[in-house]
Amino acid sequence: MENGRVKKWGIRGNKELKRASGVTMSSVLNALMSNLNASDKRGLIPMGHGDPSSFPSFRTTLDAENAIVRALQSADFNCYSSTVGILLARRAIAEYLSQDLPYKLSPEDIYLTLGGTHAIEIILTALNNPGANILLPKPGYPDYEAWAAFGHLDVGHFDLLPEKNWELDHESIEALADENTVAVVIINPGNPCGNVYSYELLEKVAKMGRKLGIFVIADEVYDHLVFGEKPFVPMGVCGSMVPVITIGSISKRWIVPGWRLGWIATNDPNGVLQKSGIVECIIGCLNVSSSPVTFIQAALPQILSETKDFFFSKIKSLLRQAANISYDRIKEIPCFDCPQKPEGSMLIMVKLNWSLLEDIDNDLDFCLKLAKEEFVIVLPGIVVGMSNWLRITFAIEPSSLEDGLGRIKEFCQRHCKK
Amino acid sequence: MENGRVKKWGIRGNKELKRASGVTMSSVLNALMSNLNASDKRGLIPMGHGDPSSFPSFRTTLDAENAIVRALQSADFNCYSSTVGILLARRAIAEYLSQDLPYKLSPEDIYLTLGGTHAIEIILTALNNPGANILLPKPGYPDYEAWAAFGHLDVGHFDLLPEKNWELDHESIEALADENTVAVVIINPGNPCGNVYSYELLEKVAKMGRKLGIFVIADEVYDHLVFGEKPFVPMGVCGSMVPVITIGSISKRWIVPGWRLGWIATNDPNGVLQKSGIVECIIGCLNVSSSPVTFIQAALPQILSETKDFFFSKIKSLLRQAANISYDRIKEIPCFDCPQKPEGSMLIMVKLNWSLLEDIDNDLDFCLKLAKEEFVIVLPGIVVGMSNWLRITFAIEPSSLEDGLGRIKEFCQRHCKK
Repeated sequence: MENGRVKKWGIRGNKELKRASGVTMSSVLNALMSNLNASDKRGLIPMGHGDPSSFPSFRTTLDAENAIVRALQSADFNCYSSTVGILLARRAIAEYLSQDLPYKLSPEDIYLTLGGTHAIEIILTALNNPGANILLPKPGYPDYEAWAAFGHLDVGHFDLLPEKNWELDHESIEALADENTVAVVIINPGNPCGNVYSYELLEKVAKMGRKLGIFVIADEVYDHLVFGEKPFVPMGVCGSMVPVITIGSISKRWIVPGWRLGWIATNDPNGVLQKSGIVECIIGCLNVSSSPVTFIQAALPQILSETKDFFFSKIKSLLRQAANISYDRIKEIPCFDCPQKPEGSMLIMVKLNWSLLEDIDNDLDFCLKLAKEEFVIVLPGIVVGMSNWLRITFAIEPSSLEDGLGRIKEFCQRHCKK
Repeated sequence: MENGRVKKWGIRGNKELKRASGVTMSSVLNALMSNLNASDKRGLIPMGHGDPSSFPSFRTTLDAENAIVRALQSADFNCYSSTVGILLARRAIAEYLSQDLPYKLSPEDIYLTLGGTHAIEIILTALNNPGANILLPKPGYPDYEAWAAFGHLDVGHFDLLPEKNWELDHESIEALADENTVAVVIINPGNPCGNVYSYELLEKVAKMGRKLGIFVIADEVYDHLVFGEKPFVPMGVCGSMVPVITIGSISKRWIVPGWRLGWIATNDPNGVLQKSGIVECIIGCLNVSSSPVTFIQAALPQILSETKDFFFSKIKSLLRQAANISYDRIKEIPCFDCPQKPEGSMLIMVKLNWSLLEDIDNDLDFCLKLAKEEFVIVLPGIVVGMSNWLRITFAIEPSSLEDGLGRIKEFCQRHCKK
């Protein structure tokens, strides 16, 4: 010691982390990105993330950018935010969401978060309790799994049914729910399935929640991004029947995931979440967490109220066109089976037909080889809880989409049994 | 059930939260704010938070604002960030920090976070392991306590010594450290004490860490905000002796806490943190967490390199003047004892002399009554681990500072034993 030799460093990392964070989108995307062939001269086609913001056709509206610039240049919003969000942003979101509800939300029903991911973190941490469990859809979104594992919240999985347009399997939910079940998660418009739930289905979920005594976490980060026959209906319309905690964000509808602005909304006119202490727990979690950038919060009233319908129609029309192209091209690929044309979100699920493929071990292997051979990123189904499937993002520049689907087809033809 | 009556809702919140989040700055500030007398016509004097951004004298530089506007309007940075931060921001921080180090940091040593709070969350979660403990200064910063409690990381507290200019008590650190101790936290420039550590002291900490086999978490969010005799020296200068994880931010030096941009830097030329798996744990935590706003990250190279010295000198000069005024005024208040004039940060610690006070139960009671009677917010010492003390922020507009200190004096005179 005297001569400066060091005692063995007593440093150890968190052993739970690998289990919890191993399945996230980010970690798999990182693995795929590092498998790319850097000498490939064709451009990379990124069909992994629901993030078309870097494509010119999907550039966000100048109204939103200008609102941010004004808030920044006022110099009134360089300060810390209140941990639940600044009042004018909470009020703006309450008004925005209330347009689609049979009752009015108040600013106190709204909690600002750093996008949808952070909202998941806050809600699942608030619910974490020894023995408690929540029910998650399969396929679903991996951050729910990660945050449940992080907090030792048990999970049960109910199926989404591909043959029934990815409706949720009510019977499996009822069979899974026990006295320790606190909530069921639904994602609408669907990530990863691209489906949209009707009012009738949401009402059925609400009745079931009420019967089982569990509330609903409604992940609506893709809200309003629907382009099929069904309109978007928020789960909050059933808030009088069952308490609903909604997760929302400007990331998808305004194509600005890098702005990190989302929210939690409690749709609960009967005050069940307040009385049960859940609201207090959400506030407690936010008190020790970081908040969204204050000047972006301050721009929110303008962003929500001044964005022109033209922008929303343009984006929906782009997505409709991209969904159609994807569905048609995918049908031409023999080893792919796609049960449903997407009606919402930016995503489509495709089943791999192993009887026609060779040289490929599993869905992750498919994606790793596709990345290496074709410079195309798609997500393996294992990330969303469905091995043997792929999750493909069609929200990219139309010309890149044709190119990407063409490369995927060539890849499949090369790996098809001869 | 059939007539719609609901089964008892099976909803319970996280019982651990209250313990973990009860002591945070935000929760105490909220309590103080709700104790204000709304009919008081004098302006509120906010001396609780280290956030002078709303005062005209402390407005951030236009160079930084313009860098943000340019990054936003390029539309290249509306996308998701890599979970560790975008490369150009990591590189810029590595270069910025390396200016003060005897070796070069690489971009891979830098991890972007949502300000210092988020950096604390990430590091303490990465270290969380059954039985592991870290050593925290007393007084200190409450978010360390909260995140340790959240993750069941044990803590030991060593004293900072008011009579020795808030130097840390090495003997108490050595006495506390055991085989499960992984790290010691030092905060320099000091929060809440306003002290600045010399190179000699940092070297002593490094030698001790090396001897004990524990690494150093150096919270330097107030870096470069020094205005006494001692220069700011980063703990990273001792990175070859002991692994150092630095927490930094633009929140304080650029007066933009609402921009939520901070970082973790591993100062570890010997690669101990890499080999022990800590780096992997930090990356794992970031993979399931939200990232700083991408366009703000993208503005960082310009913010760090193009800010004029004039801005930094102006801020330091304001702080020096405010520290002098505060120290002088506080000396005139009979029931206050201030052991040391601040040399850095934005904060000063004041001890309450109970033998001279009446009608006041404790430091929290002092602050609640001060808020109610004088429309002035200061933090009770209990929040930073020192009951019977106050933490006062002097970084406010000079005219408000005189006003606030005057109101505090009147309050004390009113509550002094007659």
